[in-house]
Amino acid sequence: MSDTNSGDASPGHLHRLVLFSDAVFAIAITLLAIEIHPPHHWRGIADLFVQMGPKLTAYAVSFAVVGVCWFSHRRVFSRLARANGGLDVFNLLVLGLIALLPMVTELLWEKHDGEAVLVYVGHVALIGLAMGLVWAYAAFVGKLTEPMPVTEAVFVLLRVALLPGLMCGLTIFSLVKPWGWALMAALVIGLNLVGRRLTPRPAKETAA
Amino acid sequence: MSDTNSGDASPGHLHRLVLFSDAVFAIAITLLAIEIHPPHHWRGIADLFVQMGPKLTAYAVSFAVVGVCWFSHRRVFSRLARANGGLDVFNLLVLGLIALLPMVTELLWEKHDGEAVLVYVGHVALIGLAMGLVWAYAAFVGKLTEPMPVTEAVFVLLRVALLPGLMCGLTIFSLVKPWGWALMAALVIGLNLVGRRLTPRPAKETAA
Amino acid sequence: MSDTNSGDASPGHLHRLVLFSDAVFAIAITLLAIEIHPPHHWRGIADLFVQMGPKLTAYAVSFAVVGVCWFSHRRVFSRLARANGGLDVFNLLVLGLIALLPMVTELLWEKHDGEAVLVYVGHVALIGLAMGLVWAYAAFVGKLTEPMPVTEAVFVLLRVALLPGLMCGLTIFSLVKPWGWALMAALVIGLNLVGRRLTPRPAKETAA
Amino acid sequence: MSDTNSGDASPGHLHRLVLFSDAVFAIAITLLAIEIHPPHHWRGIADLFVQMGPKLTAYAVSFAVVGVCWFSHRRVFSRLARANGGLDVFNLLVLGLIALLPMVTELLWEKHDGEAVLVYVGHVALIGLAMGLVWAYAAFVGKLTEPMPVTEAVFVLLRVALLPGLMCGLTIFSLVKPWGWALMAALVIGLNLVGRRLTPRPAKETAA
Repeated sequence: MSDTNSGDASPGHLHRLVLFSDAVFAIAITLLAIEIHPPHHWRGIADLFVQMGPKLTAYAVSFAVVGVCWFSHRRVFSRLARANGGLDVFNLLVLGLIALLPMVTELLWEKHDGEAVLVYVGHVALIGLAMGLVWAYAAFVGKLTEPMPVTEAVFVLLRVALLPGLMCGLTIFSLVKPWGWALMAALVIGLNLVGRRLTPRPAKETAA
Repeated sequence: MSDTNSGDASPGHLHRLVLFSDAVFAIAITLLAIEIHPPHHWRGIADLFVQMGPKLTAYAVSFAVVGVCWFSHRRVFSRLARANGGLDVFNLLVLGLIALLPMVTELLWEKHDGEAVLVYVGHVALIGLAMGLVWAYAAFVGKLTEPMPVTEAVFVLLRVALLPGLMCGLTIFSLVKPWGWALMAALVIGLNLVGRRLTPRPAKETAA
Repeated sequence: MSDTNSGDASPGHLHRLVLFSDAVFAIAITLLAIEIHPPHHWRGIADLFVQMGPKLTAYAVSFAVVGVCWFSHRRVFSRLARANGGLDVFNLLVLGLIALLPMVTELLWEKHDGEAVLVYVGHVALIGLAMGLVWAYAAFVGKLTEPMPVTEAVFVLLRVALLPGLMCGLTIFSLVKPWGWALMAALVIGLNLVGRRLTPRPAKETAA
Repeated sequence: MSDTNSGDASPGHLHRLVLFSDAVFAIAITLLAIEIHPPHHWRGIADLFVQMGPKLTAYAVSFAVVGVCWFSHRRVFSRLARANGGLDVFNLLVLGLIALLPMVTELLWEKHDGEAVLVYVGHVALIGLAMGLVWAYAAFVGKLTEPMPVTEAVFVLLRVALLPGLMCGLTIFSLVKPWGWALMAALVIGLNLVGRRLTPRPAKETAA
């Protein structure tokens, strides 16, 4: 479909890899809710929300995390012109960590203390690093991208590798200290400004 | 595929967003059935259906709800020419509410009274409002649609924002008072008549 | 993708509908296995297979059933040139029944007698009839197909409406009386012969 | 999409078959994690990892197994020019075994001894053989591939039929005896060298 104007060696491979990854993301994001069950006893709607509050909060955070990871994944793959076996392997690593997220989210319910939060944020940071590995391999080792300046490639690397962990940590921090949201907004706006200066050609995303 | 005649900046982005959303809808709709198990003891087929009746009814209603939401989603996205980060975020909100629907459906089994029904219908209405947010952002803020008259954009907004809640409420009402179905039929036919007058070009849906 | 040579009004709609249906089929077929768990105690591999035999048999039968339904669905949709709202609704009915199949399969484990088998085969026959409804609507009411002789349209109707129930009944019958497999082979070969005489143009399937 | 340059009889059929298979692979790989739950009691992060070690190891092995099977599947289907009913049936056999893998993985948790490992590796080897059947049917019986030398077809057959079982057995062996990893590396590198000599045209993968 979008393969016609890329003129590369294996668009079919890249296309199937993207579809496969999307399916895993979609399943993982939907399974986040599958272990949430309504309480057996509840008196009135307010009581229902009080009882389900922690689970719904954890759900919302994890949903946002998978969303951010999916954005990063799309961002990385929209810059690729072809795929190879190495990309398959590193991408599989990302997907394997994504598929574990529903389980790691359960940790947050069972034991809502510092250590569970640490494991959770650590896991999300690991997903970011794995995504950074995918990009580093694609851009610097496998030469799978369209030609781009090195500064841009390094910026993308830092962005996809660090953003999931940072945003996840900041989100949980902001649930406790509301001024964390200001930090988050600054981070997102700042990254967008830098990103726009480095990549002034939005039309490039056509080969997603 | 359908990108060739749209001439926009990021058809790949839009295409991946649609596929991702479709996958979430498909998973949510299939998971509706996953918590339904046959009873351990049943005597004869009639007894089986009596025992399973409430769960199967709730399943049918929720299946129809996800179906209506999917139609609305398709309707909205068939009018878009491109996607951007803001659309990602609002769309994610819709998907997050859709993925919760199997859990909210369980509420209907556990405690089949007015409050459970209220939470359920409220959740469906919320999905509609979130879909309206997606459309309002796309049409009025992000300018992601193909050119269209403002009246049509407002009609689509009202339709996607209010229809899920209305139809869900009417369906449950009609299970108790059968003449509710006549109201529902009038609603659907009326909307189609207005829709046809406002959008006389069915060929526009090619860019879905 | 395959839209270029069809020249119809809404190929995007049809394409999204097919992808959505495929996803539901794929999820339902994979969820068939999700309630199967290995026994807690087993002595040797032979004992493991003896203990799991009934569940694995039911799994194999249901997997084949979903497979046959998917073939029928593909067969129907490969003959369509466009989609509309009515097709959405009837197709949703098919998907709703498909998504219930994992639950109906559990019936076969719990109570392996004539009544459970009857409910199961009845459910599969119902899926076939719903698929027949999709085709009847598409071919005779909505005029969504490419031009074809009426005899062919009627043959497709009988085939998709009756085949799932027949094949499922015959399969279960053949598990008890092995000469049922000969009947099944005769049915499949006969249908293929008739089908070839009526539809001598395999190249038509390009617009799937 | 990639159908335009293949000029075959039923690219739509092949395309839908690939998408359907991808979805089943994606669901199976994601469901591997669904039965893993965090322990109810754990003291410190180290204790958490000790308690979850066996499950996470089994998860990682199975994830890699599904990954290798997906690579094989992609490899096979990238060489096909069209699909037919026979391919549907053999492919369904592969998918049916893939969908059972989450259940077979549970075996490894419950009873971590030689017999459970034997069943597991045997199941993976069976997946490989089923994939070999798909390829043998496509290349030698159904003539569904693009023209290729017989030596290449036989090499692909051996590769897809034997690799999953071999790699799975070697992986589990290497968890006990670390020098098994060297064997594995030699196997992968050797296969790639032979593969490159036999198939010097990577551009052929465009029709995936």
